[in-house]
Parts: sequence; C-alpha cells; structure tokens
Amino acid sequence: MKTVAGVYRLSLGAAEKTTPVKLFGPEGAQAPLAEGGPPPFGAGSITSRVTKRGFVIELPMKNDEDFYGFGLQFHSFNHAGRRRFMKVNSDPAADTGESHAPVPFYVSTAGYGLLVDTFRYVTFYLGTSGAKGSSKDCVEPEKEHREFSEQSLYALKRAKNERRILIEIPHCHGADIYFFEGPSMLDAVCRYNLFSGGGCLPPLWALGNWYRVYGGANQEQVVKLAKQFRKDDMPVDVIGLEPGWHTHSYSCTYLWNKALFSEPEELLRELKSRGYHLNLWEHVFVHPSSALYEKLESCSGDYEVWGGLVPDLADTKVRDLFGGYHRENFVDKGVSGFKLDECDNSDFNPSNWSFPELSAFPSGLDGEQMHSALGPLYQRTIEKTFRDRGIRTFGGVRSSWAVAAGSPFVLYSDLYDHRQFIRALVNSGFSGLLWTPEVRSCADSEDFIRRLQSVVFSPQSLLNCWRIPNPPWFQTDIEKNLAGEQMPESDCITAIAKKYLELRMALIPYLYSSFWRYRLEGLPPVRSLALDYQYDDRARSVDDHYMFGDSLMVAPVFRGEKSRNVFLPLGEWYDFWTHERFAGGQVLAYETPLERIPVFVKSGSILPLAEPVQFVDENGIFNLIVFCFGGGEKHFTLYEDDGISLAHEKGRYNTFLLVQDKAGKVNAARTGTEPPRYDIKEWKLIDGESNAPKPTFGGVVNWKAET
Amino acid sequence: MKTVAGVYRLSLGAAEKTTPVKLFGPEGAQAPLAEGGPPPFGAGSITSRVTKRGFVIELPMKNDEDFYGFGLQFHSFNHAGRRRFMKVNSDPAADTGESHAPVPFYVSTAGYGLLVDTFRYVTFYLGTSGAKGSSKDCVEPEKEHREFSEQSLYALKRAKNERRILIEIPHCHGADIYFFEGPSMLDAVCRYNLFSGGGCLPPLWALGNWYRVYGGANQEQVVKLAKQFRKDDMPVDVIGLEPGWHTHSYSCTYLWNKALFSEPEELLRELKSRGYHLNLWEHVFVHPSSALYEKLESCSGDYEVWGGLVPDLADTKVRDLFGGYHRENFVDKGVSGFKLDECDNSDFNPSNWSFPELSAFPSGLDGEQMHSALGPLYQRTIEKTFRDRGIRTFGGVRSSWAVAAGSPFVLYSDLYDHRQFIRALVNSGFSGLLWTPEVRSCADSEDFIRRLQSVVFSPQSLLNCWRIPNPPWFQTDIEKNLAGEQMPESDCITAIAKKYLELRMALIPYLYSSFWRYRLEGLPPVRSLALDYQYDDRARSVDDHYMFGDSLMVAPVFRGEKSRNVFLPLGEWYDFWTHERFAGGQVLAYETPLERIPVFVKSGSILPLAEPVQFVDENGIFNLIVFCFGGGEKHFTLYEDDGISLAHEKGRYNTFLLVQDKAGKVNAARTGTEPPRYDIKEWKLIDGESNAPKPTFGGVVNWKAET
Repeated sequence: MKTVAGVYRLSLGAAEKTTPVKLFGPEGAQAPLAEGGPPPFGAGSITSRVTKRGFVIELPMKNDEDFYGFGLQFHSFNHAGRRRFMKVNSDPAADTGESHAPVPFYVSTAGYGLLVDTFRYVTFYLGTSGAKGSSKDCVEPEKEHREFSEQSLYALKRAKNERRILIEIPHCHGADIYFFEGPSMLDAVCRYNLFSGGGCLPPLWALGNWYRVYGGANQEQVVKLAKQFRKDDMPVDVIGLEPGWHTHSYSCTYLWNKALFSEPEELLRELKSRGYHLNLWEHVFVHPSSALYEKLESCSGDYEVWGGLVPDLADTKVRDLFGGYHRENFVDKGVSGFKLDECDNSDFNPSNWSFPELSAFPSGLDGEQMHSALGPLYQRTIEKTFRDRGIRTFGGVRSSWAVAAGSPFVLYSDLYDHRQFIRALVNSGFSGLLWTPEVRSCADSEDFIRRLQSVVFSPQSLLNCWRIPNPPWFQTDIEKNLAGEQMPESDCITAIAKKYLELRMALIPYLYSSFWRYRLEGLPPVRSLALDYQYDDRARSVDDHYMFGDSLMVAPVFRGEKSRNVFLPLGEWYDFWTHERFAGGQVLAYETPLERIPVFVKSGSILPLAEPVQFVDENGIFNLIVFCFGGGEKHFTLYEDDGISLAHEKGRYNTFLLVQDKAGKVNAARTGTEPPRYDIKEWKLIDGESNAPKPTFGGVVNWKAET
Repeated sequence: MKTVAGVYRLSLGAAEKTTPVKLFGPEGAQAPLAEGGPPPFGAGSITSRVTKRGFVIELPMKNDEDFYGFGLQFHSFNHAGRRRFMKVNSDPAADTGESHAPVPFYVSTAGYGLLVDTFRYVTFYLGTSGAKGSSKDCVEPEKEHREFSEQSLYALKRAKNERRILIEIPHCHGADIYFFEGPSMLDAVCRYNLFSGGGCLPPLWALGNWYRVYGGANQEQVVKLAKQFRKDDMPVDVIGLEPGWHTHSYSCTYLWNKALFSEPEELLRELKSRGYHLNLWEHVFVHPSSALYEKLESCSGDYEVWGGLVPDLADTKVRDLFGGYHRENFVDKGVSGFKLDECDNSDFNPSNWSFPELSAFPSGLDGEQMHSALGPLYQRTIEKTFRDRGIRTFGGVRSSWAVAAGSPFVLYSDLYDHRQFIRALVNSGFSGLLWTPEVRSCADSEDFIRRLQSVVFSPQSLLNCWRIPNPPWFQTDIEKNLAGEQMPESDCITAIAKKYLELRMALIPYLYSSFWRYRLEGLPPVRSLALDYQYDDRARSVDDHYMFGDSLMVAPVFRGEKSRNVFLPLGEWYDFWTHERFAGGQVLAYETPLERIPVFVKSGSILPLAEPVQFVDENGIFNLIVFCFGGGEKHFTLYEDDGISLAHEKGRYNTFLLVQDKAGKVNAARTGTEPPRYDIKEWKLIDGESNAPKPTFGGVVNWKAET
C-alpha cells in the first residue's frame, strides 16, 4: 500500500498499541505535520494534555465552520455546534454520534479532514464550549426573555466568542491524529479513502438485486421462490439465507440445519444453475456445539455472548482459524458471501446482547476497543477467505469503524425510519462507508415502493424479506403475508417493483464504473451535495438528496408525500424521466406520483444505461444505450474486467471511453485486451426540453429506449 | 448524623477523594463488611480488579434475582438482565440507565441494597454476561430456528448458566461500596434513606398546589392570575416564575428584569397577602453581567455554559458565596424557594448545552464527576440559604444523584410521556428521590385531566404553565391559549380540575405525616408495590400503580383509556370513590370515566382527609374527616408542628394518634405542647360494601363528607 500525498501525521503523547491505522492503514510513515502547515493550520496551533480520564486534544476552528462525517449518522448532517460521541451502538435513539458505524473522522469546510487513530470511544466537541471568560466581551444582556418554547431554547446557536475543537480520548495517554489536505472537503475525503487503501470494488453480480428470504424457509421453499423470480422476470442476483440455516443461531454453529436444508450442495447447484449467488447470515459468537468452539476457547474474550465465545479477531491466527473454517465449508462450496450480523453493540437490548466493555481479550484489547474493532476485523477475516481463492465477495455488516473504505461490505440496520435511512446514506460518503437503506418491514405498499425506489439508487439494492414467506409485492402486511393472502393492489405494485428492479440492472455499468473511481481515486459512489457543491451554502444543508455516481442526483420521496421540493445545484439539470431541462440554483416543487422518484441528470453527463437482464451472467454482455445530456464536450469512462476475480489488481482490465466532442460527434474507444463486456446499441443525444421520450408505463419512462 | 445499623462498608482499592458519601453521607465509619456476612453474602465472595479503563467489581447473584432502583428510570422497572449506565442525561431516549437523576444504588429481591460511592459514570451489568465457558454445559442445540421477529430475538431471557453482577467504575482505581441489610427490599431502602440523613420534610404550604406562570408574563399579569385563582376558588399555594424574571436567563443574571417586574418587593407583598409563596426559576450558570461573575471567575470550571461561569460548588466557599447572594437578595425578601433548572447534562441539545466531561474544576473534580455532583451540590447550596434563616424550603431540580433523600427538592423533566412519568414515579422511591409527573403540555383536555389526576397523588402537585398565559382548564392548546380562545369544554374541565386541586388540599395532613415517616424512618412517601408486597411475584412486575403513603394505592389512567386493569395485592381494598370493598390478589377491570382515577384504600387503614382550603395558612387549622376502613384494630399518627421552621429538629412537634380499637371504638390522642393544627370534625367507619357515600359530582365522591 502506497503512502498518500497530502496526508500528515501528528503524534501526541503515547499512542496505544492497537489502532485502526496500525491494523488496517498503509505501511510506512506519513509525512509529519509541520509547525506551520499545511492549511488551514499546523502542529503549532494544536495542544494536548493527559487527564485522569484520558487524553485531550484542542484544535483551532472558525465560528462559521461546518463539519461533516463521523460515520453512519442517522440524526444529524452538519455537526457544527454538536458533541459527537464515537461509540458503536445499534440503537442510536438520540443524536449523540453513536451508531452502528461511528468513525472518528470528519471533514471541515475550512478545507481539511481529520482522523483520530483510536478504537476508544472518542468524543468530539465541535464548537460547543467556550473557554472560561471568552464570552465576557461579546454577550449582551437581553432586554426581555423572549424564548418560550423548548425548540427555541434548545436550538443550535452559532457562538460569537472564540471556540476550539475539543477531542477527548478516554483511557489512554496519547494518540496519533492524521490530517487530510483539501483544498475542498471532497479532496480530503478522497485522500482519506485512498489512505484506507482505496474504495472497495464489488463483484459485478453484487450490483444486481438482493433478496433475503423468510427466516423459516426450507430448501424446497427457497428453490421454489428462486424459480418464481425467473418465471416472473423479476431480476434478482443474490439470494440470502437468514438465521434458520444454522443448527443453532444465537449463538452460531455455522452448521447446516439439515431439518430445513437437507442437501445444501444441491441448493447451491440449483441456485447457480439459475444465475443466483448465495449469501449466508451469521454472527461471530461461537456456539458450544460449533466445531470452532474448542479451537477458539483459549483465544476468546473472557465473557460470553448468547452462551457463545467472542473470538479475539485482533489475533491473526484467530482470523485464519475462523476464516479457514469458512473457506473450507462455504467458500469452496460456492457460497458467494456472508451477512455479518450483530457485531455492533447495543444500549437497548437486554440480557447478554454483546460483551461488556470491561471484557479482556488475549491480544490485549479490552471490550471498549473490541466493540470498535470487531466489525472491521470481522470484515477483513471474511474478505480474506475469498481473496485467498482469488475472488471477490460482497456482503452485509452491522458495524464498522475507521479506515474501512476498502472492505467489500455494506452496512444495514434494523432501525427503520426511512428519512433517517436516507440521511445515513447522505452521510455515509463522508467517511468511507457503504450503506444500504434496505427494504424490510413496510407500513403498506406505498411505503414499499418508496423504499424500493431509494434502495435501487444505493450501493446495495437489498430486499430483506426475513419475516415474510411471499414477496412484498404480493403482500406487505406481515401477518397476511404469512397467511398467504394477496393484497388487492398487488398487480400494480408488482409492475412498479419490476420496473425499479430492472432499472437497477440498467444502472450496473454506470455504477460499476463509479465503484472503480472509488477504488482508484477514493471518490465515493454515493455523495452528499455538500461534497460536490461545497461552496454553495444551500447545498451544505441538504440532508435528503444525494449524488449517485457523478451524473445522477436522487431526491427520495417518503410515504405520504404527493410532491416534494428538490434543490437543484448550480448548472443545468435534466429530469431523468421526462428529460425536461431545468436551470440549477433553484428549488423545484416536484410532483411525485407513486411510480416516480425524483432523479436528475447533470447537464454535461454521458450516462450509459444497460438493457436490463435477469441477472449478471459471468460472461454476459451489457447492451448499452448511451445518453448524452446537454451541450459541450463530455466523456465517461466505463471499466471492463471479468467482474469476479482479483486480476484487475494486476492491471487486467479495459477502459472504455465514451466521448461526445464539441461538435456533438460521439465516439467510443477501448484500451486493454480483456474480453469486452459492453456493446453500444444506441447513442441518444438529449439537449433540449422537447425531445423527451414519452413515458410508457404509469409515468415511468421506459429507458429501454423504446426497444 | 448518626451511624445507621445494618449498613456495612467494603473498601476496594484506592477510592477517590470526592464521593457522594464523603460529601453528603454520615460522619464516622460504618461497620466494615465481614468475610462471611451479612446475608445474602459477605466480603469473601466479592472480587475486584484494576483495568486500563478503571475499576471492576464482581458480586454473586442468583439467576432468579430481581433488581430495582438506579434512580429516576423512565424506561424499565425490574433491571434484571440489563446493563445500567449511570450517567446524568436529560434526554434518556433509550433504556440505558441514563437519567436526570441516575443513582448508583439498587435493591435486590435477595434482600439487600448496594451503593457504589462514586460520582463516576459507573456501569452495572445485572446478569447480562456469563463468563467464558459457563454456558458450555447448559446450552442445547435448537432443532429449528423459530424466532422470526425482532421482539422475540431481542427479548430479555433469564440465564441458565451462572451469572455475576459486574460493576465498572471508569477512571479510578478503587471505590467504597455500601451494603444495606434487609431482610426485605423495603428495609434496605429505609436504611439507605436514613444513611442519607433521613428523608426531607417539606414545609406544609409546599404540599399544596403549585402553578408556574407563563414565561412572558409581567408583574401585573402574575398578580391578576393570582387574584383570579382566589376569585374562582382554585386552590393554589405556590406561584412560580419562569426565566423571564432575569435580565438575562441563558446564562443567568439573578437580577430582576425591571421591564417585566418593575417592583419585585411589591409583587412579593401582593402574593403574600393572598396566601401565596413565590418560587423563582434559575440555573447555576452565571452570566457576565451578574454581580456574582467577578467573585466566581477564579473558582469556576475552565469551560463556559451559554457564555456563563460554571461555579465550582464542590468548594464550600463557593457554595457560601453563591448561597449568600441568594439569601440576601431573595430569601430575606420573602422568596420561598427556587427551581434549579438545567443542572443536568444532555446528549441531545446542541451547542453549549452544559460543560464538557473533560472540564477541570479548581476543587479537583473533572467534568464527569461534576455532572453527577452538580445537582446535589446545587440543592445543598440553596437549602442552606434557608436553613441559615431557620426556615424550610421546597423546590424543583433537574438533576440528582446518590445520598440525596434529605434534600427538599423534587425532580421534573421536559420529556413528556405520561406513562414514562408514572414509571419514573414508581421507580423514584427505590433510591431516595422525589419526582413530580408535572402537568405541562397536554395533547387535549382529556390528557390534561389524566395528568392532573396523577400529579395530585405525587410528592409535588405541580402545573407548569410556562408556555400558556391562561390556565390549562381555560384552554389546553398552546396557540389558542396564547390567542385567548376558550375551549368549548372549559366549564366541565374546570369543575373536574377544581375537584382534584381540592382533593390535593384534603390529602395534605395525610401526606405531611407520610413525609414525617420519610424523615424519621426513611420510608418513602411514594413507593412501588414491589416494596410493600415484595413476596408477591405479581406485585414485582407492576410499573404503573404505586402506594401513596401507607394506605392509598393509585393506578393512573392515560389518555384514550376508558377502563384499565388494576392489580389489588393480597388483603382487602376499598374503592376510594365508592367505598366498595374488593378482595385482594386479583386483577380488577375498572371503568374510568374522565373524572375518575382508580384509587384504593387498604383495609385496616385510618385515612384522615381535610376540608380543602384555598391555601395553607401559617396558623390555619385543618378540619378533618377521619375514615376508618375495614375491621380490626388500626391507627394512624399525624405529625403536628409549625410547618415552616426547623424547630421540629429540636423536638418541637406533636404527634396526634388516631386509633380505632378492636371493639370499633375510635379515639385520638395528642402528645407534645405545640399549637394544634388538626381538628377532628367527624369519624366515618367504612366496613362494608353498602355504606358508600353517593357520588355528588360527575362520579367524583364529594369527600368533604356531605358538608
């Protein structure tokens, strides 16, 4: 792993032995932070001290500075004026900074990023507190108290007096901090992701649709459902099994439950023959009846979880042991990936939910450190089992931490507020995380469609149907679904759902190329407008739109809404559905019938869309319709490789450059010698208001381009 | 302060210098905990260790043991199988143990209480986690995974394997723990309260009704409202002013805002002449324009809150300074008490809400310790200003901690779920706390009545109307109240409200005597059924009924309910309203028309009720109707004193013993030489099902006894 330019380390006090960068970061030293630089400030303006509670760092800040990041945040977007407590917690009911995946990394509008290299529950105070006496000269006595509501009293207020950023790291006497240069926040984010090894590159099939089946389903029922999807032309690439496949699931045995799955290898053959990949649910807590138990007993934490061991994954040997078992029993038999559940901590769930923070592990980590480290370590452990076989994987994980951009796992949650899900999606791109606003329980069919519409525009298009034996387009109500009762609107909902599952398939080449940029440049595939439009104050407060790749801006709709306001940043924008052109810099009141999610294409974009297929065939070709939006010179690079192996790491891939020149002439050029995956069927030039293709289905454009 | 028998100290490691017991507890050593005793276990079965994170203690527990306490808990009742994190937090959104007033004290059904003597954010694990390997022999592989809902997966499960209680105290190397002997939990609670100095004794007037006025009200409007209450015969004893009375309120100046209150001494005279007491809102953060600022600057924490100083109240000199200012400017001018707001911490509120945990105070406390200590210290500071003048006070406070039973302050919250409020009331009695489920915002008039019905059966009957200029019985909707618009049902609601405000006045002698027992015996005036009926499993899970004094059991009704189930413990019970008799040991389906809150009188009780007055006159006499419920010998002791001074501490009080002997003959006997406060007008013997007085007002019994 190379050293990344524009990254500086400042070592303060005596850092702990085990930290994210030491475990996962680039080898070799980064440049030390100098006294005077880089911008906006250097080592000279930073102070630190040891206290009885731990270690405190102070940095300068401007009063109008905004802060973003801190991982998977559900409740807040701009963290200026807030305290952020970086504790892994699967139930972040309040806006504390806690999350499945808190990350002690932020970016500032002052033009830098900062990582505190620790697994401790670090707290950031972002201008919350003035030093004693600092307000003396700038607080005027008010003439009359005029705030008579909790909201006004407790509202966020910008400080008038000087503030500093305070960082407290408990239980230690020092830490390394890393600065990531700007000048823009996006530059700093990219540097952070490159420093983390670059973003992950999923296998091509993983960009299709995922469907996790009913937890009580047996082998026959799973195969029946898989056949039904193909019969109904509902595109699905990955079938996921939930806890029922284990002989014991809380804690886990990692043994097929033969009562439900009598012939697992037959299941894998059946699924593979129909183009599916299989993903298996598990967690890391090892049941006494597991074959792993005895081997792991001496290298586990001193407290159990659900009667199972907590393997000390900070130890390479333990990772190899745990991973080796998975390679032998699952990877080598064709399982394509895992869902790594319950590796976060919880404040909410009673009785033996995760291990105490006072736990001790043989590697020397305590329970606090392990709570932060477990998610990332678990991801690396599982990824390596595939890497050792030269193939990629992609899966789900319930927890992550810093320096994780390279891990091929997507975060998910069983908290379930759609608006919070979208805010988390917007926030995830600041901190090298992938997040899926998965479709799980739905209040009704409207809610189902609204959630589906946003999940297809996310890193992982996932339907988690673990509580219902029939698909949600058949019935969204859990009890009625269990009773096999079809909902009256099922036909209409199925048609809309199918269009969106197909749309996801159409987006795969575009999305795959966006992941390539994540890998090569650190550019997140899903980004807040505050990253792409940092210097527009309005974009810095939008927490419910996001960039999906470079060309698409998505503004999800929530259940109950008939229309919504969409902020268009400066520039020109095309409605994805009607191709109507809009000037940027305005807020649009946009009508949203059920079949429509507002999506806009940035003028100057080339957007390749594929003819949808039912699944990603290993050797299949994507037939492309290439849309050129707006005037002027433009280009887009498609990446092309086998989509499954690690050969790309050795340079075995093509680039396929799509260009429209100043004169409007289009061209495509391939470099490299790998077998082609893309075939351009048509170029479509969209440059005005009147050439919109007519909607052919309930307002949804048939972007198959009238074939 | 005397040593309390049945209390034992175990010193483990090196305790910190400043702790609750060292600041507030009894002087002189308690008995050291011996190796083998007292029951249920002795020092020999307790282990402890120093870790990098702090200090860990382990104690034995039984798998069927239940745990109660931990202060003002909103979300849980029985804490078995849960983790409890003792952090002061005004926004405990999740069930973590955090609260305005967490208390590191619990009682166990095994028959003991335990206090960890620390201001640190201590965590208790009550059987959550088995030690590694302890499940090996008791976990059976399941045949099939059958849990397909989050609820079932995440439900509390009793452990089969051995568990221990784990206690982690961060950032220190030892602590003293105190055991409080049983045999019952109630015994342990009483011992804890006596160890804390005994429960507080409020002034008599403080047991009347409290009304906090609109935050924007001026002097004229306050006086007008006070006159109106008297004209309408709505009993109110205390008028409270909210932030508007300061020249600057966030932070505080403690200076009258002359724009609203041009003549404060005139206001005090006006109110006093009509029998009111005045209570003033404030918090402890000192604005630069306050006269206190300069004096306190050198003895405050190193960070500001709302631009104000955080005085180091752990320093006696600072307490004297801050208190002295209050004595001179307010106490000596007739102010009867204060509402000590915002002395808790918050996870939720952004920007300069309270001070960072990394703060340092001249006394040596850090921010973590000060967050726990601030509420109790603030209470002691203010109480002393009155004590120095030989009078009692009573007020509100937003935070407390351990060893606080003697402080004459009642906790309140601006969280506002009625059901949580009642659970907090039920829980408060386990830990030496007083709590008011104050009436604040109400969804509608039904909600208002339901909340009022429960608050009159609480330690403080408080209507906090800081957002509405007119009383809630005039209009409950805030906007319409501000617009002066009367609600259509106002007449009916006013009549019901008046009955309940009068009922509160009727209960004063009974309640005052209950507080005397709190002071003398440590017996909490409001108690969970789990304390009075510990050995009945059913009573141990009731979190929405409570004992109010010794004779009354209250089962509040929540908005929207037309009836509710009431659990009657073993024995016999009389309906408070109809005097109908019921056998105990059953669950009663009880109809609850709006004017009715279920209240039951324990058979064998003598219940003195007073003829309601508009306010507690300093020299007034309570005319009593004494009800004797059920057969057999029974008695009740009324305490009698001046109701305002500290003379009772020197023995200047009477007891007034009410007796019904075996033959049914009644008698009353007074000891002591103080002027009498009680005059028995009538005895009423209630011993059957048919002698119920008829309801005279919408189902509410006229307990004025047909006068």
